[in-house]
Amino acid sequence: MRVGSGIFTDFYELTMAAGYVREGIADDVATFDLFVRRLPDPRQYLVVAGLADVLDHLENLSINPDELAFLESTGRFADDALDAFSQLHFTGEVRAIAEGEVVFANEPIVSITASLIEAQIIETRLINLVGSQTMVASKAARVATACAGRSFVDFSARRDHGGDAAMQAARSAWIGGAAGTSLVSAGQRYGLPLSGTMAHAYVMSFDDERDAFRAFARTFPDGTTLLIDTYDTEEGARRVVEVAAELAGAGVRIAGVRLDSGDLLRLSKSVRQILDHGGLDDAAIFASGDLDEYRITELLAGGAPIDSFGVGTQLGTSADAPNLGAVYKLVADESGPKIKLAEDKVTLPAAKQVWRVPVGDTSHHDVITLADETIDGARPLLERVLADGERTGPAPTVDDAKARCAAALADLPSRLLTLQQRERPYEVRRSGALESLLAELTARHRDAKSS
Amino acid sequence: MRVGSGIFTDFYELTMAAGYVREGIADDVATFDLFVRRLPDPRQYLVVAGLADVLDHLENLSINPDELAFLESTGRFADDALDAFSQLHFTGEVRAIAEGEVVFANEPIVSITASLIEAQIIETRLINLVGSQTMVASKAARVATACAGRSFVDFSARRDHGGDAAMQAARSAWIGGAAGTSLVSAGQRYGLPLSGTMAHAYVMSFDDERDAFRAFARTFPDGTTLLIDTYDTEEGARRVVEVAAELAGAGVRIAGVRLDSGDLLRLSKSVRQILDHGGLDDAAIFASGDLDEYRITELLAGGAPIDSFGVGTQLGTSADAPNLGAVYKLVADESGPKIKLAEDKVTLPAAKQVWRVPVGDTSHHDVITLADETIDGARPLLERVLADGERTGPAPTVDDAKARCAAALADLPSRLLTLQQRERPYEVRRSGALESLLAELTARHRDAKSS
Repeated sequence: MRVGSGIFTDFYELTMAAGYVREGIADDVATFDLFVRRLPDPRQYLVVAGLADVLDHLENLSINPDELAFLESTGRFADDALDAFSQLHFTGEVRAIAEGEVVFANEPIVSITASLIEAQIIETRLINLVGSQTMVASKAARVATACAGRSFVDFSARRDHGGDAAMQAARSAWIGGAAGTSLVSAGQRYGLPLSGTMAHAYVMSFDDERDAFRAFARTFPDGTTLLIDTYDTEEGARRVVEVAAELAGAGVRIAGVRLDSGDLLRLSKSVRQILDHGGLDDAAIFASGDLDEYRITELLAGGAPIDSFGVGTQLGTSADAPNLGAVYKLVADESGPKIKLAEDKVTLPAAKQVWRVPVGDTSHHDVITLADETIDGARPLLERVLADGERTGPAPTVDDAKARCAAALADLPSRLLTLQQRERPYEVRRSGALESLLAELTARHRDAKSS
Repeated sequence: MRVGSGIFTDFYELTMAAGYVREGIADDVATFDLFVRRLPDPRQYLVVAGLADVLDHLENLSINPDELAFLESTGRFADDALDAFSQLHFTGEVRAIAEGEVVFANEPIVSITASLIEAQIIETRLINLVGSQTMVASKAARVATACAGRSFVDFSARRDHGGDAAMQAARSAWIGGAAGTSLVSAGQRYGLPLSGTMAHAYVMSFDDERDAFRAFARTFPDGTTLLIDTYDTEEGARRVVEVAAELAGAGVRIAGVRLDSGDLLRLSKSVRQILDHGGLDDAAIFASGDLDEYRITELLAGGAPIDSFGVGTQLGTSADAPNLGAVYKLVADESGPKIKLAEDKVTLPAAKQVWRVPVGDTSHHDVITLADETIDGARPLLERVLADGERTGPAPTVDDAKARCAAALADLPSRLLTLQQRERPYEVRRSGALESLLAELTARHRDAKSS
């Protein structure tokens, strides 16, 4: 898919844009906020990701001649709309919370101020990118918490929803705390450490499991990890000891073994014993197989001597919360601040700022204010990253985002790092000025409705 | 991401390939099967999708100079491996079950016979494509069943896991039974009907909801659908009646209204009354908002007068089963048929065929046989689609796949179309020859282990 394609969007964005063109308001300036109304249970915070792709999309935004011809062929658009589509570029402003930062419900993650037509057409892609990547980064942070200092790597590529999802999962997992990925193309594109050993098919391609171990160890003599559960895990561990002894003279080092099935708690303990008795005290145990933060917590609570984890499916698809209800709402236009009051949803009006006030573990809180307010001693999270369609500075690296995430998690009130259940939520206050504006607009709508 | 990139793969595929090169067995021929061990609860069947992208990947498979330089830079590969990587192309055979066909646990969906190095390196991408697309097509078929003749469209783009996921979701949903998609770029690429109306932001960009309705209806006078829940759904319906009367003389037709929040059962009934009383008997009611097959079943059971559904998040992320445990296993190599016997997993050995024996609602079953067996009166599902790396014929269209799915679902034993709980599973038998081979190989491994 072409980066910046203006037709990677829901059809209604274009029909609305055509409406704006017809009404002569397509160039009116409006502000839209992207935010999450409710954290998926039992999430207690989110880790922002996806902004890098958003900026690439906006910098390259256009509808090319082929795409325009397709739109014309639908018969739904008049010439004035098609003409506007042909000139589409992003010329507005983006304020955003940096990748790796921790955020909470109703806090604007990205705030767009642009012409109505631009701001409307980009909606679908912005939510698609920020929602899915924030989802995985947030899941990764939970897995990192469960690992309690041990490392884990992203093994999700095969289970992710297509190619982009796998690339994004590797990057988002890295931001959230993974030590690397198995996906080679993500290693290339994002500069991530690669992780991987061997599969059952490799072992099965030899008649004897020991021959498979010998061949693989000779191919990677500087430190190889052998998969030992193809036939029988404990027998596999004994064969590793045998092969290690054989090849030690040839300078081959067995760095570790991998368990990928069975009762990982029991097997990791018995395998550790077999390796230790065989003189392989420094060989690490790497475990994989349907792991997530809950399962890792159980294993470590049970004393599993596992040094590192491969986490795939549950991480890359965020399986216990496989989507994030991110929304993108109009909060102001040329007539002033706006709200939406559908039966079960409220939107905070006007361009806003989010302030973090880290005043101790229990009083640590955020305040959402109007954009022009200031809170002394607090840190503003929304930064201007695009102005007049141009970047305001160099893009942060993915390592910057990873470091920011680690720092943000270390600063969080400790109760929020509980994984299994919701604790008292992080406090997100609203400034008096924002509350007053919300009350005023709500009253105005109630009056309009009853009149 | 480059189509056919050989490094869109897990790192261990490449380390194993390097092992094969070193052992001189990289060109040995092997057969791998892609299948699902267990259907996600409460799925009773799967709908195959993803094969079109698999064939594109295989036809374009290569590792280009940049990718090769990256692999070299990891310091993990010897010259012989890098040389083999530089020459990578797919020259093997693919047998596959066609997109749109219905399949069950343990049935090979794709069977690859190729050199070990080729067959190994493609694993990650094949599972990634077939697993995620089959997941969505299967979900879509369930939604179609729930709709019971009413239509639904894919609205998932913003919730899908990145760009590819959204494109694939639109296509897979169409195969599984959707009537269209909201994603414009998917409409362009796959020739799918587009669906979409307006959003709350459009309504909010006007001071009066009626002005928004007037403007939108004048922009699309041939039949427009108006979103009525921005402020108050029933009031919105009354305003539609008012605007329709005003504009009828100008040749503007209101095709329908859309409800996107609130109690859809209650509101659809009251809105239907308001429209009917206002002379808009033929205006359709379109509903969206966190719908899936369960919710649609409830709404229709309650008598909701809804004509068409927009299904987003739950469809595109298959939220109740957001991943499919598809696996890709070695089943034969130059030494003969192979099995894997880890503690909780068994693989059926040898190249196989799947036969469908539709002999009445209760005796309808499949038989998995060895590839060279034949079952009289039954239909073989695996077809050779690539030979010597070349397509054996023109690719089926996405409409072929959609028609195949509709026919396959119509033929299924009726108990399998139950959505809420598992019924007696569809029967998948194994031929006597396959059972004998499995028993023989299992015994051989047990002997080897105890010796």
